[in-house]
Amino acid sequence: MSLPGPGNPATHAAASAGRRGRRGGATASRDHILDAARKLFAEHGFDGTSLRQVARAAGVDPAMIHHFFKGKDELFALSVELPADPEEVLAGMAETSPDQRAELMVRTVLRLWESPAQAGLLAFLRGTIGSTAKTALLREAVARRVITRITASVPGPPQEVALRGTLVATQIVGLMMVRYVVRLEPLASAPAEDVVRLVAPAVQRYLTGPI
Amino acid sequence: MSLPGPGNPATHAAASAGRRGRRGGATASRDHILDAARKLFAEHGFDGTSLRQVARAAGVDPAMIHHFFKGKDELFALSVELPADPEEVLAGMAETSPDQRAELMVRTVLRLWESPAQAGLLAFLRGTIGSTAKTALLREAVARRVITRITASVPGPPQEVALRGTLVATQIVGLMMVRYVVRLEPLASAPAEDVVRLVAPAVQRYLTGPI
Repeated sequence: MSLPGPGNPATHAAASAGRRGRRGGATASRDHILDAARKLFAEHGFDGTSLRQVARAAGVDPAMIHHFFKGKDELFALSVELPADPEEVLAGMAETSPDQRAELMVRTVLRLWESPAQAGLLAFLRGTIGSTAKTALLREAVARRVITRITASVPGPPQEVALRGTLVATQIVGLMMVRYVVRLEPLASAPAEDVVRLVAPAVQRYLTGPI
Repeated sequence: MSLPGPGNPATHAAASAGRRGRRGGATASRDHILDAARKLFAEHGFDGTSLRQVARAAGVDPAMIHHFFKGKDELFALSVELPADPEEVLAGMAETSPDQRAELMVRTVLRLWESPAQAGLLAFLRGTIGSTAKTALLREAVARRVITRITASVPGPPQEVALRGTLVATQIVGLMMVRYVVRLEPLASAPAEDVVRLVAPAVQRYLTGPI
């Protein structure tokens, strides 16, 4: 989460500027809206939270939310502040046939975690798992922004496809936890190609195999 | 981890009692040894830590360690303080043929997490993942006390069996994270029998299938 502080030029401007209409007041309202959204999404989920409720909790007019955010989806995405943008990371997932998607998925995880983003991902996971409210926000974000992309165009009844998505999540989350967080050997230092070869088939079975 | 403090009667007694030979002093020495062990095991691992080093760091005579603990294994087990005893939870694992072990393993995880122990397990995971030192201790504990039992008598070269153990860990850890920590639906509320049927085959492949 980006906290207001002297290092943040926008907040700095807010502190030295007037309340309304000017840059500083606007930034403060935007931050109030995001804070309120975070609390409500964590408590009631995405579907259980309305923009009207967010506006009331933030003490702003509902129109103010539409002034700053394109809609509920954008407000949600910005309030969770994932360390990597799922739309960007998972680009190409929906264009890859579900039958071929597991390998791409495992490669994507490895590329992301074996990049300079790793420190930020670790800090995010540590901070998120440590807090019930943040874990609830993560759940909403993964369900809405990750699982839907992973399971796009997978054939089957919606409830079964959703179950497949969470089974894929068990394998991907477990891989991240064991290889990058807990760092159990020999998996932690196994070559990336070995990890793809070993783990992708399990992911593929969950996504499109018989379950 | 049990921290010394006014709420801890043993530590309280230690603070108000004499240094040596009496109950309070002995408890204080035992706590010093455990604290030193925790730090050293986290920093250098089990194999890289000697009882002599622990004694020096705790400021006690090495004989004192043997007075309180049966040996390095017991000292390690007590210093990590897992919320459930692997020896107890995994009893029967080694007696079950490796070809049948995955189902028992998944059932064991579900029984443990769907018991009154769940709150303690969650608190332990949250606290552990949030700290680098505690995560390092967890790594040692899982490697020495869990993986060895899970992979007992699995055929193959030791390095390959160790890799199988960590692959099993990805699936088991991921299941715990997705079902009990992040609680992604529909897996979070799926009946236990469905979870066994869905996840055990993946675990079994990692343990004894072609890799």
